[in-house]
Amino acid sequence: MQTSLTVKPIEDLPLVQAGDDLALLIGEAIVRNCYELQDGDVLVVAQKIVSKSENCIIKLNEIKPSADAIRLAEEVDKDPRLVELILRESSEVVRKAPGVIIVRHRLGIVSANAGIDQSNVDHAGGECALLLPKDPDLSAARLRKSLEKTTGKRLGVIVSDSMNRPWRLGTLGFAIGSAGITVLDDRRGQKDIFGRELQVTMSNRADTIAAAAMLVMGETTERVPAAIVQGLAPENSAQTARDCIRPLSEDLFL
Amino acid sequence: MQTSLTVKPIEDLPLVQAGDDLALLIGEAIVRNCYELQDGDVLVVAQKIVSKSENCIIKLNEIKPSADAIRLAEEVDKDPRLVELILRESSEVVRKAPGVIIVRHRLGIVSANAGIDQSNVDHAGGECALLLPKDPDLSAARLRKSLEKTTGKRLGVIVSDSMNRPWRLGTLGFAIGSAGITVLDDRRGQKDIFGRELQVTMSNRADTIAAAAMLVMGETTERVPAAIVQGLAPENSAQTARDCIRPLSEDLFL
Repeated sequence: MQTSLTVKPIEDLPLVQAGDDLALLIGEAIVRNCYELQDGDVLVVAQKIVSKSENCIIKLNEIKPSADAIRLAEEVDKDPRLVELILRESSEVVRKAPGVIIVRHRLGIVSANAGIDQSNVDHAGGECALLLPKDPDLSAARLRKSLEKTTGKRLGVIVSDSMNRPWRLGTLGFAIGSAGITVLDDRRGQKDIFGRELQVTMSNRADTIAAAAMLVMGETTERVPAAIVQGLAPENSAQTARDCIRPLSEDLFL
Repeated sequence: MQTSLTVKPIEDLPLVQAGDDLALLIGEAIVRNCYELQDGDVLVVAQKIVSKSENCIIKLNEIKPSADAIRLAEEVDKDPRLVELILRESSEVVRKAPGVIIVRHRLGIVSANAGIDQSNVDHAGGECALLLPKDPDLSAARLRKSLEKTTGKRLGVIVSDSMNRPWRLGTLGFAIGSAGITVLDDRRGQKDIFGRELQVTMSNRADTIAAAAMLVMGETTERVPAAIVQGLAPENSAQTARDCIRPLSEDLFL
């Protein structure tokens, strides 16, 4: 029997600052929210607060754009300092258009602006930009280890961000980092309900859980940068979000 | 305050046949599952059972492939009759490679094989293929009308399918049809938590709900082709899944 799942917002998290112990803050908020964690629960944490706690914030007035960045900035009508950061963070510009730079991030993720974001960031000390965490899988693994220790439960952790897609409007949550969960659920070779072999059925479980969490997290002013997904079976997969990236050799849209 | 959401599998649905009254079958299964629907609940139904009930099943031995289909079939190593169906269902071939045909479906959806599927279909009377419903938004609207009548609740309905993405492995659920829900949650122009204007924040709510439902539906042999998402605020949007399709003029990957 398939069990029901519950997606619970973690509310009343304080605004996260550089150097904060995120596992501690989240652990305390879980207690304040009166949530009782179970084996198999997956914590989904917004990239934004992971990046903030890891001090991935850059002051734009400290950035000196290269000639390449200045040229590209003019072409797409963006701040050259921001374009410089986008180029530094990525291995390749995939597409460009007025207002749009789509790159392959050094982590392998293809997205707009290398995931660099300026919203919900405090610009009081000068205009800033927030980069993705250096190693989001490692961030997830650390959070997992710490929260498993304090709760005594077997947990999964996902660091989520929102992503645009080429042919669909509106962003969707996805996993940039993960620990302890099967990110790709591979059913190829199994049989369907009529006994015929399944051809190409592999679902992205990490992105699906990240997307589901987004329903209670919101993306803007909701101040709910974390959620718990309850009802999943406990597991202990060594897969990480990096395994979700389609190899370059299979890329039909280079 | 943000409320928790629950995603509940609708179990014990009979195998759906052409001509079945899907709203009736789902309504009965909801009762058998002892679920009490609330205003705002969203029913997510797999495309597969919508297509089956609407008799979108084609016997391959009745298909005579065109010269174009035969040529393309040879190039990508697929059954020419299947390729003929893919071409008939689509307006454009977006990419092709051995084993892969990515097209723009006549509904505007870009996906592999025009969403045509051969798994979990009964091939006893000869090899078959299942097409997408003629008008999935209309299918969703009809299901909604019928289920709102029998339950007396204000519901949303999504017809879901699973989709591949260019740079990520593993499929994700998405909405090919919908009724009664805001499919795009547009926050552009609103302010972030520090009072700065949000630039590009529009999330795809329909795809997100469809993805969340997939966590309990599974994609293969689970026999759970429908789910209920509970805890969302009631609404009455005139948007449909068709509104999720990025206009051709914005397509950077043509």
